Amino acid sequence: MDINADLGESFGRWRLGDDANMLALITSANVACGFHAGDPTTLLRTCEAAVAAGVVIGAQVGYADLRGFGRRFVDVAPDDMVADIVYQIGALDGLARTVGGRVAYVKPHGALYTAVVRHHAQAGAVVEAVRSYDPTLPLLGLPDSVLLAAAATAGLPVVQEGFADRAYADDGTLVPRDQPGALLTDEATVAAQAVRLAPGVDSICVHGDTPGAVALARVVRQALSKAEIELRAFAGGG
Amino acid sequence: MDINADLGESFGRWRLGDDANMLALITSANVACGFHAGDPTTLLRTCEAAVAAGVVIGAQVGYADLRGFGRRFVDVAPDDMVADIVYQIGALDGLARTVGGRVAYVKPHGALYTAVVRHHAQAGAVVEAVRSYDPTLPLLGLPDSVLLAAAATAGLPVVQEGFADRAYADDGTLVPRDQPGALLTDEATVAAQAVRLAPGVDSICVHGDTPGAVALARVVRQALSKAEIELRAFAGGG
Amino acid sequence: MDINADLGESFGRWRLGDDANMLALITSANVACGFHAGDPTTLLRTCEAAVAAGVVIGAQVGYADLRGFGRRFVDVAPDDMVADIVYQIGALDGLARTVGGRVAYVKPHGALYTAVVRHHAQAGAVVEAVRSYDPTLPLLGLPDSVLLAAAATAGLPVVQEGFADRAYADDGTLVPRDQPGALLTDEATVAAQAVRLAPGVDSICVHGDTPGAVALARVVRQALSKAEIELRAFAGGG
Amino acid sequence: MDINADLGESFGRWRLGDDANMLALITSANVACGFHAGDPTTLLRTCEAAVAAGVVIGAQVGYADLRGFGRRFVDVAPDDMVADIVYQIGALDGLARTVGGRVAYVKPHGALYTAVVRHHAQAGAVVEAVRSYDPTLPLLGLPDSVLLAAAATAGLPVVQEGFADRAYADDGTLVPRDQPGALLTDEATVAAQAVRLAPGVDSICVHGDTPGAVALARVVRQALSKAEIELRAFAGGG
Repeated sequence: MDINADLGESFGRWRLGDDANMLALITSANVACGFHAGDPTTLLRTCEAAVAAGVVIGAQVGYADLRGFGRRFVDVAPDDMVADIVYQIGALDGLARTVGGRVAYVKPHGALYTAVVRHHAQAGAVVEAVRSYDPTLPLLGLPDSVLLAAAATAGLPVVQEGFADRAYADDGTLVPRDQPGALLTDEATVAAQAVRLAPGVDSICVHGDTPGAVALARVVRQALSKAEIELRAFAGGG
Repeated sequence: MDINADLGESFGRWRLGDDANMLALITSANVACGFHAGDPTTLLRTCEAAVAAGVVIGAQVGYADLRGFGRRFVDVAPDDMVADIVYQIGALDGLARTVGGRVAYVKPHGALYTAVVRHHAQAGAVVEAVRSYDPTLPLLGLPDSVLLAAAATAGLPVVQEGFADRAYADDGTLVPRDQPGALLTDEATVAAQAVRLAPGVDSICVHGDTPGAVALARVVRQALSKAEIELRAFAGGG
Repeated sequence: MDINADLGESFGRWRLGDDANMLALITSANVACGFHAGDPTTLLRTCEAAVAAGVVIGAQVGYADLRGFGRRFVDVAPDDMVADIVYQIGALDGLARTVGGRVAYVKPHGALYTAVVRHHAQAGAVVEAVRSYDPTLPLLGLPDSVLLAAAATAGLPVVQEGFADRAYADDGTLVPRDQPGALLTDEATVAAQAVRLAPGVDSICVHGDTPGAVALARVVRQALSKAEIELRAFAGGG
Repeated sequence: MDINADLGESFGRWRLGDDANMLALITSANVACGFHAGDPTTLLRTCEAAVAAGVVIGAQVGYADLRGFGRRFVDVAPDDMVADIVYQIGALDGLARTVGGRVAYVKPHGALYTAVVRHHAQAGAVVEAVRSYDPTLPLLGLPDSVLLAAAATAGLPVVQEGFADRAYADDGTLVPRDQPGALLTDEATVAAQAVRLAPGVDSICVHGDTPGAVALARVVRQALSKAEIELRAFAGGG
């Protein structure tokens, strides 16, 4: 089982997340690419730290919306989406390679993640971008999403993920962030959800920007270990 | 002799330059990278067109200043500059590779080009960025600039360029754009300057965003041809 | 009858529209506010020119999306929308007042214009923003839109507008720009549509950024004049 | 004596400073205007809180450089600077007025603050912007700066300020932030410097974004009170 979290989400003067401590607990780092978060210096430092910690680097691609932190749907046309996503992957990959790493997978962020569960045009554009950049790059997404179906059709490796600290609706989608109870914060609940989800997914996501994020990541890691589920990145980093 | 020009400088709804016609006249395209000009869709289309035309692609890196078109000095710290420039090269290289091209050289744009003639810290950062990305990438710059001296010291290939359509000061620097006479627009003058500069440089720059740019590029090409100077890109594109 | 057009849509190095010639033909200028187009210098110059031409200044508010020119829906939360719109109106009003003008009305731009035809939350936010800034400012919009209904309920003056150069769907909404035939370019067609719409609306919109925009504005003006429809701004400018 | 601090410096998802607690200690709030920090929603909430706390609102204008937090010099041309600054003041004033406040003074931020100590063109542009917006608005700056001299010549009210928590060089300028010892963090030192500076200045600045900022503001307030220096905003807020 893999544990992934969003890293590199600081921007200039503004700090977000406790990346240093998260890197000791996760196996895959979804590193922002500058469109919804992460300036180039932050991204370079994050890649350096991930390489040093032996954590695999993924490109977390998002809408070009710093003010909304990529959490607002933007009606981007497919052609623009393809170019935007290749641009983001290439930028992060370039930075990662200068410090001995590389982008080893791609994960959509925020509102784009939610959109591509059902939005065929944007899901197809994300898949086309990854395929045209490197058809061996795995794409992370929600099980049963349009994104993963399109990725599989295109021959991309797909990684199904579950969220330890987000509430699920009955249809298997995530409860939107602006609804009460969307974020799970009780350690025992989060740990139990991680173990429950594990058999059906390839990676467990824990969030990096919430209060207590590090503590939650730690209990998830401990709970998986106690359940004798081996921790291992799904992708090779080098 | 190589002829280079700035391409891919449109942004979203705003069109700039006649890239299609310039591609028929130049051997190397300095393609913007999104910081001072060029949205990802524009950059992807420009790379496609350059590949189709057999024109070599270079990354034209600049200050993150769309409003100023990269023509205003920004006092960027060296660490940030390194990361910014790797980010830009990686982004463009990623786009170029999806259409069968690649970034084959790097050229600073606008106020950054001017700054690194004398600004040691920023020149060093540009060199360090290129070296860390790919130490075989040539760096274009002004002869006798701090940039090219630092590049040579770092073992990067250097390409000295002359400007067919810019006036030179007595010290060999370019007359600043905001001064009268900075831009040469007379075809005969521009053609003569190109031929005069040719023996001392590796590449002749013509500008793509000025009125009559295509006509000037054409007379430069014709003048070099008439002077029996062979046209050939200094870098391989594939 | 009033004729309005979008002005001040240049951004930095990028020029768009023939504002000088449009100002001689229209009575109201929808001036961009920097979020979807228009840098502060452009806006200041546009206000100066509008004041000199005796053309009334309106604030054309939009999504914060330069790359998409405000033509992509962004799922902005109502609280953020209120603040964004007050910010834009205040910024333009501040500039206008330094040159003897003022913002005399408000018009949503692009995808926001389309959204508030039906999107209650965003329409309500636009109305709340205008009301909180100045409840005497008229709001321009599509007849029968949610926006104008909400504006009327809030006690704002409403201005119903028709589009001379856009195709209408049967339900009275505009044919989306990405569909064939959305933009009318035949002068006779545009002129006839302006005269046909005139009895039912308070203002006729002509676009400023299309090829032939000035010519179309001229035929609209001539057609209205020939039909003995008096041209007059709906709002006072001073 | 007035105590001022920088507020409203959060941006979207990124929080900065403890504005709520600072408002209980200061008499004037330098509120960011969106160019170097502060999204419109943040600015609106900050103005609301300032009005509720009886704290006077000033427009803290800066370079358009979110990534650099306005702390990097940008070589903005005077005409652009005038427009940029009027835009910022107008935007914040518009927001402030919707919640019962108004912009009552102007203070340059970061690298612009430093630049206008000596940079005649940019200082003149700041003065021209404020004068054209409202010639009764006081301008805050460093004693003996080019800015305050130009403001006085233009007839603007000037407010000389001292910094309780910044080290001074022998020439009366501030030690640059990137030098050791630039920021004072010892409470007794800061308190003593505030009392020492008080006779020569109209306002004491304390910083809002440093660790311990609230504690430092408290000791400054207490020290001034103990020295029987009356606390009072230099500008009226309503």
